[in-house]
Amino acid sequence: MSKEITARSQDYSQWYNDLVLKGQLADYSAVRGCMVIKPYGFALWENMRDVLDRKFKETGHQNAYFPLFVPKSLFEAEEQNAEGFAKECAVVTHYRLKTNPDKKGALMVDPEAKLEEELVVRPTSEAIIWNTYKGWIQSYRDLPILINQWANVVRWEMRTRLFLRTAEFLWQEGHTAHATSEEAVAETKQMLEVYADFVENYMAVPVIKGVKSPSERFAGAVDTYCIEALMQDGKALQAGTSHFLGQNFAKAFDVKFSNKENKLDYVWATSWGVSTRLIGALVMAHSDDDGLILPPRIAPLQVVIVPIYKGADQKASLDEKISVIVAELKKAGIRVKYDDNDNARPGWKFAEYEMKGVPVRVAIGARDLENNVAEVARRDTKEKASLSLDGLAGTIVTMLDEIQQGMFDKAKAFQQANITPANSFEEFEKLLDEKGGFISAHWDGTAETEEAIKERTKATIRCIPLDNPQEEGVCILTGKPSKERVLFARAY
Amino acid sequence: MSKEITARSQDYSQWYNDLVLKGQLADYSAVRGCMVIKPYGFALWENMRDVLDRKFKETGHQNAYFPLFVPKSLFEAEEQNAEGFAKECAVVTHYRLKTNPDKKGALMVDPEAKLEEELVVRPTSEAIIWNTYKGWIQSYRDLPILINQWANVVRWEMRTRLFLRTAEFLWQEGHTAHATSEEAVAETKQMLEVYADFVENYMAVPVIKGVKSPSERFAGAVDTYCIEALMQDGKALQAGTSHFLGQNFAKAFDVKFSNKENKLDYVWATSWGVSTRLIGALVMAHSDDDGLILPPRIAPLQVVIVPIYKGADQKASLDEKISVIVAELKKAGIRVKYDDNDNARPGWKFAEYEMKGVPVRVAIGARDLENNVAEVARRDTKEKASLSLDGLAGTIVTMLDEIQQGMFDKAKAFQQANITPANSFEEFEKLLDEKGGFISAHWDGTAETEEAIKERTKATIRCIPLDNPQEEGVCILTGKPSKERVLFARAY
Repeated sequence: MSKEITARSQDYSQWYNDLVLKGQLADYSAVRGCMVIKPYGFALWENMRDVLDRKFKETGHQNAYFPLFVPKSLFEAEEQNAEGFAKECAVVTHYRLKTNPDKKGALMVDPEAKLEEELVVRPTSEAIIWNTYKGWIQSYRDLPILINQWANVVRWEMRTRLFLRTAEFLWQEGHTAHATSEEAVAETKQMLEVYADFVENYMAVPVIKGVKSPSERFAGAVDTYCIEALMQDGKALQAGTSHFLGQNFAKAFDVKFSNKENKLDYVWATSWGVSTRLIGALVMAHSDDDGLILPPRIAPLQVVIVPIYKGADQKASLDEKISVIVAELKKAGIRVKYDDNDNARPGWKFAEYEMKGVPVRVAIGARDLENNVAEVARRDTKEKASLSLDGLAGTIVTMLDEIQQGMFDKAKAFQQANITPANSFEEFEKLLDEKGGFISAHWDGTAETEEAIKERTKATIRCIPLDNPQEEGVCILTGKPSKERVLFARAY
Repeated sequence: MSKEITARSQDYSQWYNDLVLKGQLADYSAVRGCMVIKPYGFALWENMRDVLDRKFKETGHQNAYFPLFVPKSLFEAEEQNAEGFAKECAVVTHYRLKTNPDKKGALMVDPEAKLEEELVVRPTSEAIIWNTYKGWIQSYRDLPILINQWANVVRWEMRTRLFLRTAEFLWQEGHTAHATSEEAVAETKQMLEVYADFVENYMAVPVIKGVKSPSERFAGAVDTYCIEALMQDGKALQAGTSHFLGQNFAKAFDVKFSNKENKLDYVWATSWGVSTRLIGALVMAHSDDDGLILPPRIAPLQVVIVPIYKGADQKASLDEKISVIVAELKKAGIRVKYDDNDNARPGWKFAEYEMKGVPVRVAIGARDLENNVAEVARRDTKEKASLSLDGLAGTIVTMLDEIQQGMFDKAKAFQQANITPANSFEEFEKLLDEKGGFISAHWDGTAETEEAIKERTKATIRCIPLDNPQEEGVCILTGKPSKERVLFARAY
């Protein structure tokens, strides 16, 4: 092995960092809390982005681009939203640097170039967008507006983790405007389904769809819908959110429209987003102690072919045969690389592609060629088989589908095995400490109890699942009556 | 006509703004100097981006993402670069807002949340990227690094224009690292060719390829290659630049590698970029007093079909036939829209799509259906013809190619007619004022003369064309000897 990875059992957190760094997904940067997304990691993000972008367009959305900066007066207009983000925002106060007279070669902020109004680097774009929509909406004929933006945002988090929590991150944010509450709620739910479909069927990560409790809502939302995923260490991860914003932003920015009855009303809003955080979820949901395990549908590279040879003659005959196989795989729509780099040995390459989570590795040696076979290895199960070169492309297409499904099934089984009911606070604490995962428990519905449970256990209500069965019970903490269980977990 | 556009002859600048705003490309925003790119404008940018991105990947580049912020100490490391951008950069100084005790509902910068080191919002990313490359490069085996980034950048321009000059803009910036000077120069030139090919063959805008004079170089570059386009008002517009950075950034950030002889040397660099400014060039190069004229290859919509009918029966038979035509056009890879909106009259629609520059408009009425024809109108030449519905998709595919070529030919003829030699300063001034365009003149090669000409005429040296013929002559201003003509123009 060329590079060592900390074992999950030894230090889960270090294991995660090792995978991200040694799997070439990202690197630390010189800027506090910001990271560099390396080409391999960015190719993964591009694949994820392209699938989502297609789904957004299929559901009638268009992309647009709004300013990076939010003037302070707009930022503070929607009070809850402002309060939620004020504590962690980057603020531009000046527009020029000048020579520092006290230090040769150094620059300093030019005090004469102070902005009249400070600019907040967007932590989310509701404010700047709703201020813009005001100019675009007069009548119900201007509605709905269905816009998405791919952008960078900044939240000045104190404790950061590669992908999971960074000061700057990439995301998409949909912002839609509607004539009725019903239509906006339907949009919110539709986008939650789009996210769930993407995360489950492309990332192979099963999710639970639900609604947040009031204290976990997005700042400024009436309702926050979410999808929650489960990581291998038993902690939950919020993978995407879709917010019904009611008329909150329309009121804050005075966005009214005349409806079909020619009466003025405030516009109804939604917003929804997923971010590069999903890459963190992907890494933690599937990988093992040998490296990343990427699902074929979004893996930057689906198949790598490694030749095994001695001398130029063997290499030449392998090159000839493999170039045909590569062409066949490409024709079948497979992202394939033939790694014939002469400077690295096959064993080193095997470890490298294992580290990078390439779903299928094909090794072909001189004797394989004679026997018309190749050694094909699955990254997920580590199964190896000697397979015929005839129809290899078809065999691999099928195998990629099996890997995709197998990864989902494995993660789904893990998720199902880790949703556990607790009927007392004692049981709740014990489960959290010994097993983790989602704990299904009764709660009295108050923010105070939620906060108390969080303080004592670090567990939060991840969501109230959609179509949650109604069941009489009593709150695990206060004993007060409850009509349904909710899902608690410790979370990223 | 639903919306009036100022005529070019009346107010060229207002004509441009009208086109951008009424053509639905962009809108002003609440943030000084920043704009909103509207869905139609963003779809155009997406088409441009996708073509360029494919070309970058075909030439071996990968995308990655680096932080938005540049710590001041890194920003100032490469002195020329720092000096070039310090005067117009947005500076983040604080990371929190707090409640303003003096004003209800208002926030203020929290003085206790002052950053130890200020962060510059990237105006360009050489500094942050070369500081990163330092950690990635040890040996010649790590080279070349061929990375591109699609990102937003901020330059605090005092006078802004939609697309042409905005405080925040979208662009791509390639940043490559090489083992030899020759390889870096070859990369610089290759990317200039990629840009020229894109601008000429997709945007239908002819360009002149050249090298900048030393005073017009990118801050920190050894050589800046550029493509220069000509607008209808006779002003030039720099459409793309590709910089050979020598070892300047490697020295500033101490990026060394051991070469094949195992000796340490500084790494050679290039950077190259084009931005949303190209959309401004596109608008000004082709459009007319009725609206935008977009080249088919990148137009968001290539064909619009407008039905002309009275009553539901006629509409139904049109719908039936047109749905077949739409399917055929889509099958032929054409971006087509059937506008059967019942709330707008055909004349209004005609004006609207003319405004938006859709290359081909197809109008079909009840009588057309009987005669198996449609009225097909070209946006660029305004030619109309009654064409058979049989094989219409094929006819239109050919027509789109003709439009693309016709637009380029027209712009090329205009460019060629507006490159004029001047042999005296008097002639030079007269040409500038009466004709505009590129003026080919001798210059003594000094920055002083260049500056003096700029002060007196507002014309700058746009470039020294590649493969420039050598010719003995004398500088139009100083009479000093010169070996070649260079191209001057007033420019955006």
